[in-house]
Amino acid sequence: MTISADEIVMNSEFDIINRYFLRSAHNASLGIGDDAALISCQPDTDLAISVDTLVASHHFFPDVEPRSLGHKVLAVNLSDMAAMGATPRWVTLSLTLPKIIAHDNAWLAAFSSGFFALADQHQVELVGGDTTQGPLSISVQIMGEVEREKALRRSGAKLGDDIWVSGFVGEAALALRYLQQKTMLTAEAAASCLPALHTPIPRVSLGRALINVAHSAIDVSDGLVADLEHILQGSQVAATIELDHIPCSSRLKDKLSEGGADYQLAIDCLLAGGDDYELCFTVPENKRIVVTQLAQQVGVRLSRIGKIVPGEGLTVLNNNRDPLIFNKKGYDHFLD
Amino acid sequence: MTISADEIVMNSEFDIINRYFLRSAHNASLGIGDDAALISCQPDTDLAISVDTLVASHHFFPDVEPRSLGHKVLAVNLSDMAAMGATPRWVTLSLTLPKIIAHDNAWLAAFSSGFFALADQHQVELVGGDTTQGPLSISVQIMGEVEREKALRRSGAKLGDDIWVSGFVGEAALALRYLQQKTMLTAEAAASCLPALHTPIPRVSLGRALINVAHSAIDVSDGLVADLEHILQGSQVAATIELDHIPCSSRLKDKLSEGGADYQLAIDCLLAGGDDYELCFTVPENKRIVVTQLAQQVGVRLSRIGKIVPGEGLTVLNNNRDPLIFNKKGYDHFLD
Repeated sequence: MTISADEIVMNSEFDIINRYFLRSAHNASLGIGDDAALISCQPDTDLAISVDTLVASHHFFPDVEPRSLGHKVLAVNLSDMAAMGATPRWVTLSLTLPKIIAHDNAWLAAFSSGFFALADQHQVELVGGDTTQGPLSISVQIMGEVEREKALRRSGAKLGDDIWVSGFVGEAALALRYLQQKTMLTAEAAASCLPALHTPIPRVSLGRALINVAHSAIDVSDGLVADLEHILQGSQVAATIELDHIPCSSRLKDKLSEGGADYQLAIDCLLAGGDDYELCFTVPENKRIVVTQLAQQVGVRLSRIGKIVPGEGLTVLNNNRDPLIFNKKGYDHFLD
Repeated sequence: MTISADEIVMNSEFDIINRYFLRSAHNASLGIGDDAALISCQPDTDLAISVDTLVASHHFFPDVEPRSLGHKVLAVNLSDMAAMGATPRWVTLSLTLPKIIAHDNAWLAAFSSGFFALADQHQVELVGGDTTQGPLSISVQIMGEVEREKALRRSGAKLGDDIWVSGFVGEAALALRYLQQKTMLTAEAAASCLPALHTPIPRVSLGRALINVAHSAIDVSDGLVADLEHILQGSQVAATIELDHIPCSSRLKDKLSEGGADYQLAIDCLLAGGDDYELCFTVPENKRIVVTQLAQQVGVRLSRIGKIVPGEGLTVLNNNRDPLIFNKKGYDHFLD
């Protein structure tokens, strides 16, 4: 085995930025390389701002494929823009790297290629950031534009609204439990659900299309129940959803119908799995046709799972329309 | 010893945000609590954006007083706004906490009080963030407003400009070397220089006042030589500065005149120490009186340390006006 020149090169903080992250500014007045970036906002827009940090061993396996990691750290932030109905425009990236990764050019190249592939797809510009030494952790701050006072908030749900969710729920959680060897999957089933965990697709076009249609929206990152409850608390309403209306893959449906140990695991994935990055939103009943058209327009499956009702809290009805009792209400970093 | 109720309470991610970081939005259309914050930029301004992450054991001692840490993590970001001449307005905070700190209410209260004391002083609003579990690391993203096309950039230095620096340089580095037991200080001297390390004062008013006065500016975070070289590279010019014009405390002056081991340490502190958060800026010679008036106006000592000249690179002249030879060119996280 030979050690290539690349592998023994020592990267300085500036080398890492210059080699892997420096691009000329297009949407920004001033990009990477000064004390701050400069951007000009459009008039009549609000700027939507969000930040999400992924920490090794807590949010991802330390040996995760770096190209996927570069994708995912941006995807989870794009998903926050989607949930506001905003067009993502600019990001900053704060990379904390152990020395061994800071000097691993293959890792850095793969990470940045995953990051920029998704950024380019959404015409999002990296305008700043920093690179520090320490345990692997990546923080992305995202900024997007949304028509003034039109953003989709958690607090807008109204009595009688239908509750909708995009895509499939529980896939990422199922993939995680498979990697943790908590459940078995065929090779084919594993291959089908792992991308939901590693390279989630943020629903940016859907979020934009929901402006003037949805009363409220959130992205499903903590788990369907926990995130829907954020809407209920924000809007001071209650909701009823039906378990068998929650969209999920045949893999998860099989586990739900098998009974036994995997039934509980499937319920957990579906209701409290998190890491889905689908949108959950509420729309008045008289706009069902609009939502159906919109699903075709953006090419995303949309499922109606329940109703906003008076009162407090969330009721999940099982297949017999009895209220389901469950414990785990979503992922909390400090209580797991 | 008794364990108080507070000390055994388990904090969830939401508890931490609600108890220590949630405040009502004043400058923002929507603050903490949704998928993103919403802000409205003033017309005819650019938005300046910067991010800085502090990692335990790399940027601060893990047992640092949490109130100071809350101050410092905001101060280093305010300093980036100062260097652009921007008025800081909004921040997001990404906190990665080990479990033991996440459940230490005294730590969290002290950290947030240090953070908000400085935020209030500058009327800066915390609009979002996240809280995750992992090795202690804190990332702040700051946004500020600056008159369109008026921001102070690194690239604006002109031949013949005077080079100025605010306050004292090298104090924070001296304090660090004292804590690392690399040098001795009297108790009184230590007490005088430790605040420069723990609770630096960002030069926000000075930065604002330098708009339309300075051709270029940077904040001294990596070390005077390294940061001034960023201006030289950005502006494609050279510079000469004089060692004995660099403003420093009597403590550092004593070490400079003592000779021996501490002479080199003092030179390192002065030229490559970093963590100063003073402003280094260039101004045309015919505005010397303006700068002097401005120093009085904002109550900050300003020292003229050299000139922008044709060519490439930085020359530091010693007290005999001979070029000084030195190695360490500032702090780099991956090469130390």
